[in-house]
Amino acid sequence: MTKILDGKKLGKKIAAKLKKEISNLSTSPMLAIIQVGDVAQSSAYIDRKKKFAAEIGAKVHHIILPLDIAEKDILDLIKELNERTDIHGIIVQLPIPKHLDRFAIMEAISPSKDVDGLTSRNAGLIYERAFGGADPKNVPAGLIPATAKGIISLLKENKIALSGKKVLVIGRSLLVGKPVAMLCLRENATVTIAHSKTKDLDKVCKENDIIIVAAGKAGLIGKKALTKKHIVIDVGTNTPSKKTLEEIGAKKLVGDVNFKEAAKLVAAISPVPGGIGPMTVASLFENLVEAYKRGK
Amino acid sequence: MTKILDGKKLGKKIAAKLKKEISNLSTSPMLAIIQVGDVAQSSAYIDRKKKFAAEIGAKVHHIILPLDIAEKDILDLIKELNERTDIHGIIVQLPIPKHLDRFAIMEAISPSKDVDGLTSRNAGLIYERAFGGADPKNVPAGLIPATAKGIISLLKENKIALSGKKVLVIGRSLLVGKPVAMLCLRENATVTIAHSKTKDLDKVCKENDIIIVAAGKAGLIGKKALTKKHIVIDVGTNTPSKKTLEEIGAKKLVGDVNFKEAAKLVAAISPVPGGIGPMTVASLFENLVEAYKRGK
Repeated sequence: MTKILDGKKLGKKIAAKLKKEISNLSTSPMLAIIQVGDVAQSSAYIDRKKKFAAEIGAKVHHIILPLDIAEKDILDLIKELNERTDIHGIIVQLPIPKHLDRFAIMEAISPSKDVDGLTSRNAGLIYERAFGGADPKNVPAGLIPATAKGIISLLKENKIALSGKKVLVIGRSLLVGKPVAMLCLRENATVTIAHSKTKDLDKVCKENDIIIVAAGKAGLIGKKALTKKHIVIDVGTNTPSKKTLEEIGAKKLVGDVNFKEAAKLVAAISPVPGGIGPMTVASLFENLVEAYKRGK
Repeated sequence: MTKILDGKKLGKKIAAKLKKEISNLSTSPMLAIIQVGDVAQSSAYIDRKKKFAAEIGAKVHHIILPLDIAEKDILDLIKELNERTDIHGIIVQLPIPKHLDRFAIMEAISPSKDVDGLTSRNAGLIYERAFGGADPKNVPAGLIPATAKGIISLLKENKIALSGKKVLVIGRSLLVGKPVAMLCLRENATVTIAHSKTKDLDKVCKENDIIIVAAGKAGLIGKKALTKKHIVIDVGTNTPSKKTLEEIGAKKLVGDVNFKEAAKLVAAISPVPGGIGPMTVASLFENLVEAYKRGK
């Protein structure tokens, strides 16, 4: 029988843990969220973060900027937030308009407040720490992108060992694919990174034990790719057309995996919704509390 | 027939190109090499770098420090070299004694002079730039670890395309395994990173088209892992015991691949010596000239 990897349940468990931790702190950790334009999709994500914050006793400082804001104004705002001692984490809600240089904006965030783990400092650290034994021992732990962190937490909660396993990561984004590949490598998994240019993806899936799909393509992975030994983590959050939904027999929000086909077949799978989504929010606030404590 | 990927020949070609470039510069690029203790193995590597520098008209400033040097003294020296305008690249010859914090020492090097590409800034950039299309477009090019750079150059020189190919990287060091994996990913290869904890490595080899071995283990890859379709890059430089040498039928310096077995079998292979070794030295000086030009 297929085991459902329940991110909602673990998210609640983490919330309870964080709530207790925060109640013992002298002040509340505060997350600054910078949003450029009141885009509906971004607002939905931000609302979930606000709700989680309220639940655990953290604060959110939500700043909505006009869509046509000048890059310099965002950079000045980030500088100000970097200096404020009552702000412990800063995130820029993605996507941002194309006239803004995403890299320059991310780099402006102080790495110690970069709770999304997207500055090159934190990205570099996760990359450097993905070693077995031969690499430098004193590489500090940075802040890890929340989705990647949440995936590892969900696997560990379900006692799914990574060492010696073959893990396939589909997608190579800075937010999910690459950091989770590095974390799996650190856990001594043999890691394959696949993407849109990969040939015969179904075959590559069959060569691996654990499949982490973060491709943003509804129904990308189905029964042709899967066997009963597979453990599947579905990071996709797609809202496809009605026609596609009918084809894959799904409701509004779907992952990258054809859940109907997979849930009859594989050893374990994280559902969408209720899998990695809640883990991402919970892991973000783990990062915030971590940043708060390191700053003291 | 097996094609030999000749790094010595390409190294000479790069030397000629660099010599011409340097003759057009107003001053000579200068590389500072910091060596802790006059270790024979390190000295041999440094001699090769000095020889190459002399050949192309670059300068080397070789500093030998006592084995028991205090960390603070190395950090002060690096700070001084960072500030000197006549020094364009700084490397710390590895290994260094265990009482020194390798990470702290690497981090002290100015990223713009870090021609070994080992600072977290440059490591982070190679990681961030390993994308297809969705990642930030304005990530600057950092300095790439010479061996990883040399491997890609040797593949390109031999017109071996990476896009859509399955590349296996064995080893996950910061010097070779991880950066070359990122470079292959950037070239749209499907990349697998294996290591000492990987199970059934021979089988994993057979699932891939190109094998890059940087494990530091003589004879790790032999006929059981290889087929006639394979392209093999051997990064190993091992000096095993007489007994092992006899077993694999090799001379003094051997790679991680059993060359005798492989050379009868695979489509192409880089030999040891004469493969990646000369490419590493040539690529280091490409980095030096790059750092010189960016500093102008």
